Amino acid sequence: MVYFDNAATSYPKPEVVYDSIMTAMREYGANPGRSGHKMALKAGRGIFETRELICKLFNINNPMNVIFTFNATEALNIGIKGVLREGDHVITTSMEHNSVLRPIKYLERFGVESTIVKADSKGRINPKDIEKSIKNNTKLIVCTHISNLTGTIMPIEEIGSISKENGIIFMVDASQSAGVYDIDVEKMNIDLLAFPGHKGLLGPQGTGALCIKDGLELQSYMQGGTGSSSHSLDHPEILPDKFESGTTNGPGIIGLGAGIKYILDKGMHNIREHEESLAMHFIEEAKKIDGVTLYGPLDVKQQAAVVALNIKDADSSEVSYILDQEYDIAVRPGLHCAPLAHETINTLEQGAVRFSFGLFNTHEEVDYCIKALKDIAREV
Amino acid sequence: MVYFDNAATSYPKPEVVYDSIMTAMREYGANPGRSGHKMALKAGRGIFETRELICKLFNINNPMNVIFTFNATEALNIGIKGVLREGDHVITTSMEHNSVLRPIKYLERFGVESTIVKADSKGRINPKDIEKSIKNNTKLIVCTHISNLTGTIMPIEEIGSISKENGIIFMVDASQSAGVYDIDVEKMNIDLLAFPGHKGLLGPQGTGALCIKDGLELQSYMQGGTGSSSHSLDHPEILPDKFESGTTNGPGIIGLGAGIKYILDKGMHNIREHEESLAMHFIEEAKKIDGVTLYGPLDVKQQAAVVALNIKDADSSEVSYILDQEYDIAVRPGLHCAPLAHETINTLEQGAVRFSFGLFNTHEEVDYCIKALKDIAREV
Repeated sequence: MVYFDNAATSYPKPEVVYDSIMTAMREYGANPGRSGHKMALKAGRGIFETRELICKLFNINNPMNVIFTFNATEALNIGIKGVLREGDHVITTSMEHNSVLRPIKYLERFGVESTIVKADSKGRINPKDIEKSIKNNTKLIVCTHISNLTGTIMPIEEIGSISKENGIIFMVDASQSAGVYDIDVEKMNIDLLAFPGHKGLLGPQGTGALCIKDGLELQSYMQGGTGSSSHSLDHPEILPDKFESGTTNGPGIIGLGAGIKYILDKGMHNIREHEESLAMHFIEEAKKIDGVTLYGPLDVKQQAAVVALNIKDADSSEVSYILDQEYDIAVRPGLHCAPLAHETINTLEQGAVRFSFGLFNTHEEVDYCIKALKDIAREV
Repeated sequence: MVYFDNAATSYPKPEVVYDSIMTAMREYGANPGRSGHKMALKAGRGIFETRELICKLFNINNPMNVIFTFNATEALNIGIKGVLREGDHVITTSMEHNSVLRPIKYLERFGVESTIVKADSKGRINPKDIEKSIKNNTKLIVCTHISNLTGTIMPIEEIGSISKENGIIFMVDASQSAGVYDIDVEKMNIDLLAFPGHKGLLGPQGTGALCIKDGLELQSYMQGGTGSSSHSLDHPEILPDKFESGTTNGPGIIGLGAGIKYILDKGMHNIREHEESLAMHFIEEAKKIDGVTLYGPLDVKQQAAVVALNIKDADSSEVSYILDQEYDIAVRPGLHCAPLAHETINTLEQGAVRFSFGLFNTHEEVDYCIKALKDIAREV
């Protein structure tokens, strides 16, 4: 099977990830932060190491500001709802995933205003359009780092500067970039960084995180047991406890740590260069096929290893189905939980077939897929 | 190592649980519900099977009414906040975990009223006290099935009848009972059932669920991508999508399914009887030790395999530390995220040492632990 669906979840994971999850489950599968016995302490230390690795990767100075969540969606909900109150204005973009758009749309019921800045036809956001949208009550700017539909890389450093100059909180959805593209929360002025553990960071499903800038106060989200201040009926205000209640995914977070260590050892730039070369190879060859329409910038400086296309006017689900059934190639069709991004590239009806490349894909797989696309283009 | 901390998380898990998680990760680790390729469909089917197993275990008629969550705390937050609005009244008990008490306390800021019914000194709740607390605006009754501190089994069937007669929504926190004690949502009139996957159900950490009675409308909690109605900026209203956004813990849920299958194959009553006999053995022997104070009903009909005690006026953390360091016995000391329950049994200052027995514990381990307690009682 050829797996080109890494933007949904990376597969496979490095061996060390599977092994560390199994070791954590089998050898010290206690509840971290709840008891004081050796196994619980060992699990707690494993989780703390993952916090430290995340800090190293994104230049965060305090591991306690890393909050582990179920997935990126929860991290985005905690951040967006933690900042915005009635009367506030938020700026976001037409390239966002529903995990950003839907919480914002939901908050409109409670008196939050929003502006959605439109991208150009290649999915690119002009930072000046964001700057022009700033109002007196703008409290938050939320932008994806990389579009999950077109792979377009957003100018987050420039948007971060604009946010800082205007005293606005800046939140980045790094769902498609964390673990592959450089992110420095200091240099890029990122106040809230949300990401999943199971995509570019090579960890398991059931992991995600929100990194909160030192001193940024967010409203409470979920309340429960934290193993701290247990005498009090009020949920503690200190981080990470404020946003981590109930039993966390101990072995999952330890597996995420193994994924990050793997990336650091291999060199993130090496992973990125490999993925870029696969994407460019794919784009160059796909361009030559009659009837194929490619979306996005189609340039490695502006596009990650996520490529959306259509073949003539064939339904994207049909093309994906043929790829899966006849060629054993796994891709994702339809609407990619990003309706305004589809509007932007004019594929709201047809959807798009998305090819997303990962660390373990090869050029041979790309060649095999190109042959398949040629066959399909002749037939549909 | 002797592991008597099963109320925090069960350990070890059955081999089949580890194996099914690894198989799901290695062989079909795709993102369920997002793409249509074979691996994603297989992961989706695995998750659906777990929904069906949960239905079988708790007599739920529609698998779509089972919502997978990060843990029981999230399930409790979704249920409590989904029901209660300004002006509503909620009844709960002094035996609840902070995962119930803290969300309720938080909602008081938004005009929700609460009554906390007090248990007797053995942690027992009188259903009549709940009935007497009902007011015109009582919307919800939340009760734990089994106390995580004293193991006291609550009369949830009677409380369910009272709720039904009075048209009040009934929510049960089954964190300490799911997978060991009979729960029938129809017979017990349970409208909302919240539980973790990683305790009695023998699944991994990072899993939990909320079962919602057919037709009960809860307010939206988290919004994001669901892989459904992707064209819409409004989060879908259908279950389970309404409360499942973002990538779920696929391999974890599949592992949870393996845990439930294991329980069904082995017979839940066999597991319960084994745990009861361990707890009774422990209680009988511990009673004889000079200086030991045991809490709770101390009777298998009224108490699960969770036993709290103190030795003279020794700090519970000190006793646990000695058990861990000198005898390699893992228990939990301190306050057990249930401050009012400690008030009820008068251990708010000393805390309590909690011994919680599981499926894989043996009578030999209990005997070894009793010997250790005798030594410690002589020394402290």
